[in-house]
Amino acid sequence: MKLLRFGEKGAEKPGLLDAEGAIRDLSGKIDDIAGDVLTTQGLKKLAEIDPNTLPKVEGEPRIGAPIGLVQKFLGIGLNYSDHAAETGLPVPEEPIVFVKASSCICGPNDNVLMPDGYERMDWEVELGVVIGDPAKRISEAEALDHVAGYTICNDVSERRLQVGGPGEWFKAKSYDTFGPMGPWVVTKDEIPDPQALNLTLDVNGERMQTGSTSTMIFNVAQLVAYISRFMTLMPGDVISTGTPPGVGMGRKPRIFLKDGDVMHLAVEGLGEQTQKLVRGN
Amino acid sequence: MKLLRFGEKGAEKPGLLDAEGAIRDLSGKIDDIAGDVLTTQGLKKLAEIDPNTLPKVEGEPRIGAPIGLVQKFLGIGLNYSDHAAETGLPVPEEPIVFVKASSCICGPNDNVLMPDGYERMDWEVELGVVIGDPAKRISEAEALDHVAGYTICNDVSERRLQVGGPGEWFKAKSYDTFGPMGPWVVTKDEIPDPQALNLTLDVNGERMQTGSTSTMIFNVAQLVAYISRFMTLMPGDVISTGTPPGVGMGRKPRIFLKDGDVMHLAVEGLGEQTQKLVRGN
Repeated sequence: MKLLRFGEKGAEKPGLLDAEGAIRDLSGKIDDIAGDVLTTQGLKKLAEIDPNTLPKVEGEPRIGAPIGLVQKFLGIGLNYSDHAAETGLPVPEEPIVFVKASSCICGPNDNVLMPDGYERMDWEVELGVVIGDPAKRISEAEALDHVAGYTICNDVSERRLQVGGPGEWFKAKSYDTFGPMGPWVVTKDEIPDPQALNLTLDVNGERMQTGSTSTMIFNVAQLVAYISRFMTLMPGDVISTGTPPGVGMGRKPRIFLKDGDVMHLAVEGLGEQTQKLVRGN
Repeated sequence: MKLLRFGEKGAEKPGLLDAEGAIRDLSGKIDDIAGDVLTTQGLKKLAEIDPNTLPKVEGEPRIGAPIGLVQKFLGIGLNYSDHAAETGLPVPEEPIVFVKASSCICGPNDNVLMPDGYERMDWEVELGVVIGDPAKRISEAEALDHVAGYTICNDVSERRLQVGGPGEWFKAKSYDTFGPMGPWVVTKDEIPDPQALNLTLDVNGERMQTGSTSTMIFNVAQLVAYISRFMTLMPGDVISTGTPPGVGMGRKPRIFLKDGDVMHLAVEGLGEQTQKLVRGN
């Protein structure tokens, strides 16, 4: 299934994509794509619904972030061997876990807003892992059973702030609109191997990032198991699993986003995102 | 008002404390103490209810954390001049903002669970600031208008993990039960000056921490305004504003919590908490 949320920001309805690519309205069946809906049981109930029995959504509504309530939005630093190489930093021995504020999450095609006074905004296409069943101290072998599905995340970052001291990653990555997510959560049955997905990101039509989840240092199962040692992962929590090479800060010379730039992201099997950068956050 | 949540974990009902100290059941009026209920408008509506018209709750139910949905649970590092001195670290030039996972939040008198393999658990009594109206890029002068009220937080920390590299504070402070909160949210009208509150923490009846919010390096208004520069603070977000001197790690010799220890916390005007430490998280 491809689960999504459509409508104006803050008033999104739950939906799913049917076999023809049309949006079907799920709001008669569930309140939101969130919480228990994303558990094994919740997804099983949704899968029993015949999409043809759901109202078809006409027109082209805005697509929101595909999850209504993300309690923990976690990121992983330096998780691609080829990206670690471009930053010049050593390959981490354990996953570097950081947090993005859930208030930064926006729809996959919403404008990304540049905060006044900051000039070093950068892109990061990433595979987002959406937690389904609660996960506490689980093994790697069990980990994927606790995953509901996958989505695309753009881990937008302000590099001037990020290079500072403790807590700075959180601030640098948490401005409103710094977390485009979607367009949908693709349930894991449609993604047999999360470690074999190509990722790309273009800026103004020029290819900047090209990667494959096969070069992750810590794979999805290892990340879910690792984080679950320290905290309980809850339904709807999202782990953005790190970015492949080609970020603006890693290029020679460095490139940062400017007003009007358009980012286009794609992850194999998960759809596409397009965001325009606009000054004035 | 003193707003609280009572009942079994995961099934708490909203309530308020009446003038006699009895719990009145608010579940006929609101779904939870969360979100819009905590805004200026939401609190105004609650204040118009005569507590005597609400069902009185008999017996002594468990008290849960006083907020049903904390989207951002933020902590401030080294925010008391006398605590910074005991750690031997320099006074920060800007607030050090870190994150605790919302999944660590528990009731004020629940057991705190010690994770297997960790032996350096420590306590931190703190003033918790509960956000009411959304706050984005607000000034210090406006900041307290965006506060709903105050509560007590015990920022339980695992020190072995905390001294490590990037992201380690988040892990060290996010284990399940590492965030006792409550017993209630005291609305700001009852706390005319948040910078004049005494805080204490005892372990097994022995006074360990004694402090006053008057020695904060960054006061509540400054913290709210500062964080709002980087992200939108939402209703029900909680900022735990740092701890006064007397943590176990700062004592000579160091003391860490052991199985069966009992912590007792009090903040002037905000009530008390009592937690027992139990092995087996």
